[in-house]
This record gives sequence, structure tokens and C-alpha cells, in this order.
Amino acid sequence: MSKRQTGRLTNQHVSSGGASGIFGEDAQVHDKVAGRASTNVYEKLCSENPKYQFRFRNHISKQEINDKLQSIDARLGKTLYVKDSKIKPDGGVIEVLDKSRKWRVVLVGEAKYQGKDVENIQAGTLVGKNKDQDLMVAGNAIERVYKNINEIRNFMLDEFHFPYAVFLQGSNFATETVQVFRPDGTFVKIRHDSGAMNRIDRVTAANYCMKINQNYCKNIFLGHNKSSIMLQAASIYARCDPWKEDEMQQIMLDIANTSLGILNQLG
Amino acid sequence: MSKRQTGRLTNQHVSSGGASGIFGEDAQVHDKVAGRASTNVYEKLCSENPKYQFRFRNHISKQEINDKLQSIDARLGKTLYVKDSKIKPDGGVIEVLDKSRKWRVVLVGEAKYQGKDVENIQAGTLVGKNKDQDLMVAGNAIERVYKNINEIRNFMLDEFHFPYAVFLQGSNFATETVQVFRPDGTFVKIRHDSGAMNRIDRVTAANYCMKINQNYCKNIFLGHNKSSIMLQAASIYARCDPWKEDEMQQIMLDIANTSLGILNQLG
Repeated sequence: MSKRQTGRLTNQHVSSGGASGIFGEDAQVHDKVAGRASTNVYEKLCSENPKYQFRFRNHISKQEINDKLQSIDARLGKTLYVKDSKIKPDGGVIEVLDKSRKWRVVLVGEAKYQGKDVENIQAGTLVGKNKDQDLMVAGNAIERVYKNINEIRNFMLDEFHFPYAVFLQGSNFATETVQVFRPDGTFVKIRHDSGAMNRIDRVTAANYCMKINQNYCKNIFLGHNKSSIMLQAASIYARCDPWKEDEMQQIMLDIANTSLGILNQLG
Repeated sequence: MSKRQTGRLTNQHVSSGGASGIFGEDAQVHDKVAGRASTNVYEKLCSENPKYQFRFRNHISKQEINDKLQSIDARLGKTLYVKDSKIKPDGGVIEVLDKSRKWRVVLVGEAKYQGKDVENIQAGTLVGKNKDQDLMVAGNAIERVYKNINEIRNFMLDEFHFPYAVFLQGSNFATETVQVFRPDGTFVKIRHDSGAMNRIDRVTAANYCMKINQNYCKNIFLGHNKSSIMLQAASIYARCDPWKEDEMQQIMLDIANTSLGILNQLG
């Protein structure tokens, strides 16, 4: 397998391989890494906070979200067509039991992979209808990421934190232009500012277009005439290069600990 | 073309044809109907409110949304990778000029079509890998609907109204079980409560799972400890049967007038 090389035009590190199982495979591998990372976070939270009780779930039912919405306001949480509808963030949901014996969410993780151009170029695979292009025009599947973000926002409408980590990976999420080498030693640029390639802008409504790669677990309150509004921003982590398990784990642990801090402050 | 028939098991009206151009064609037709309906709404608003100035746009740039976010709080609206990124709700955006010469959104329309089972059954077309099934397992493309909803929520963070109409149509959005007749006179049921068929639950996070087919233009404020939170709910209109142009138009006009009423109240 040809190794990746860092380009001259960019500071972005394109890793030189590492776990060879990660490259050239598909989105499922990325999802599994996220699942393992959040399982590790769960175990770390348990061992570091022996006085708290945690649980890890791989789904939340829509009925439970509706019940929560109903408890906030009777107009909300009224609609359900398929009784067993559920949401399944791929990094699962971690919760802690509070003093009133209520489960409170401390972490939700999602990992999304889109854009296989690096792998294709390195393998010398041309793409497109006539198999004559280096780069594939990016798709829009990533826009589905908002659904679970909106579901968890609803589930946490009465909280002061929103611990939602989204890891975006693949050539559609490059934050800087990347050079990728073909097997023959020539290279192709993956531009981060090309409308045909980059899809980060399709996700950033979820963090009110704040800077990416930051922890936004703590909700922001803004004045709105005589009342206030609450922003629940997803913490969006994006890059071309795959997120490694330990990197995801550290970021998720940081977010989970922010949640615990906020819940503790509230008493 | 075989006509639709109303089933015995349901009250849901499955129209007996009407404009024959609508059936058996694809999502683009539905989009065009929405575009025509909102163009008509624009013209009606202009003629009914001669003292106001309106405009109709088919897109809003992400930069403009960022500028608006920045004007609300300096942390927001900072990220843009592709300079000319824009959002294009298929029913366009209608705005009114206020006393301070600022454009205020009074209507955003979207129309989404998913699930061609009625058309397939009526045509006697079997589907699936082996072309031996009556019904196609529903996809999840509709989850992309949240992106523009979240973008417009951000664009209208400082408003008291959210005039976002979403029209869902197709077998994946049946609100009651529907019987559809094959050319040979036998029938197939499209169940509204089947997880393989119905996708309304994939959209309802956008209106906090309130009842569908209602105008939620006016934002809801809820107490949240010592502050408040603002709900911006999409007005979701769903059914199996196609929305007709005049139906969409009436609903959109109602929402646009609600916007005008709220803006007027604010003075």
C-alpha cells in the first residue's frame, strides 16, 4: 500500500499510514472507531468517578424523547407514527445518574465519513462516469447529520449543556488544501475551498458557524428583547485525515467532563 | 392511467387523479409546484399589501447568514470554507422591507417527495432486488431536510417568528394507512405505522414533535430556570397524496400573513 505524504503547500498533516486497517476501507470502520472510543470514555468515566453511576446506551427511543418534551410543555412531543422509532448515534449515548435519580446525558458521539479521494488517488483509481477523473464531486449525504443533533437538542431542551461531538473525516472535510500522491509519484491537490469538494459548510449550521474543532458543550444564552434564547451547539471536529481512536477519546472525555462540571455546578 | 381509489380502512383521501402531470413523475415536479405556489404567494402579498415592499429570492448566501449571526454575537458566524456557499430552499424566500429598511423573512417554503409506492403499485411495477416486491423499503434522504431548517433558524435567531413551511409528499409520509389498487383490481396496503415505510418521524424533531399540518410561524418561549428558551418550529405538512398548488399556496399565504402580523405587532 502506498503511503500518504505531506504536501509542500499546506501545514495539514496527512498521516503516513499508521493503523493500516483504517485506510481504504469504508465508513463503517470510522464508525467502529468512534464506538470504541466512546466505550473507552464510558469506562474511564466509571473508573475516574467511582461515586457516580453511569450508563452507556446505543439508542434512545423517540417515545422517550417525546416524554421528555411533554414534561417540558404539553404541546410538545405529541407525534409518533412508528411506535418503535429510535435514534442511534454511532458513538452511543453516555448518561450519569443525578441526585434525584434521573439520568442526564453527558456525551453523544457521532462519526461521519465522506469523500474517498485520498484513498482513490493513492491507489491510482480514476473515478467518474468515464473513469477519467482524479476527484469525485462531493455528495450531500452528510446533511443527514442534523437529524440526530436536532433530536438530542430536543431531548436536552431543559439542560444547560449540549455534549454532542461530531467527527467529520474524509476528503470532503479538509480544513486546508492537501496534496495526495499517485502511485507514479505525481500528485493531486484536494482543495479545502472548492465547492465541488468541501462539505464542512453543510454542517456548520449545527454550531451557528462558530469555529470548528472546539468544545461547545456549555450552552450559550443570548438576550432577545426582554427574554433570552439558548444556543445548543454541536462540537464539530473536521479534517481530511482519519481521527484516531485516542484522539476521539480525548475529545469526548473532555466534553463528558465539561458536562459533569456543569451538572455539578447546578447541584 | 389507472386512477387511485380510496380504501375502506381509512379516512385518508387518496385523490382520484386531478392534474395528470403530477403523478408518476418525480420529485422535480413536486418542487416546481412548490416554486409556483410560492411565486403566487409573493404576487398575492404584493397586491394585497400595496404599502409594503416585498422581494422573492431563490437563495441566501452562507456569508449573509454569517453576517447576521455575527451581528447577534461576535462568536457566531465565523466559519466559511467555500466562499460562494448558499442555501436554496426549493420554494424560495419571501421578504418584506421594514420601517428601518431591513429585509425581514416572511416565508420560506420547501417541498420534499419520498416514496413512489403508490405510482409503482398502480402501474403494476414490482420493485426490489428481484423485482418481486410491491413496496420499497423507505430511504433516509428526507433527513437532509434539517439542514436548511437549521440555516434559516440561525438567520432568524433574533426574530419572534419562524415562517418555514415543509411539504412532505409520497408513500413514506402517509398519515393513515392507504389502500392502493393494482391494475388487476387487487390492492396493497401502505401502512402509516410501518417502520419500513413511514418517514414522518424522521422529520418531526424540526417541530419538537408537535402535531403536524399546523402553522407554527409564531415562536414559542418557554421558561428555563431564570431565563427562557425560544422554539423555532417548522410547519410540517405531510401526507401520501400530492399537495396541490392551490393548497400549498393557501397554507403558505397563511404563514406569510402570520409573519406580517407578528412583524406589525413589534412595530
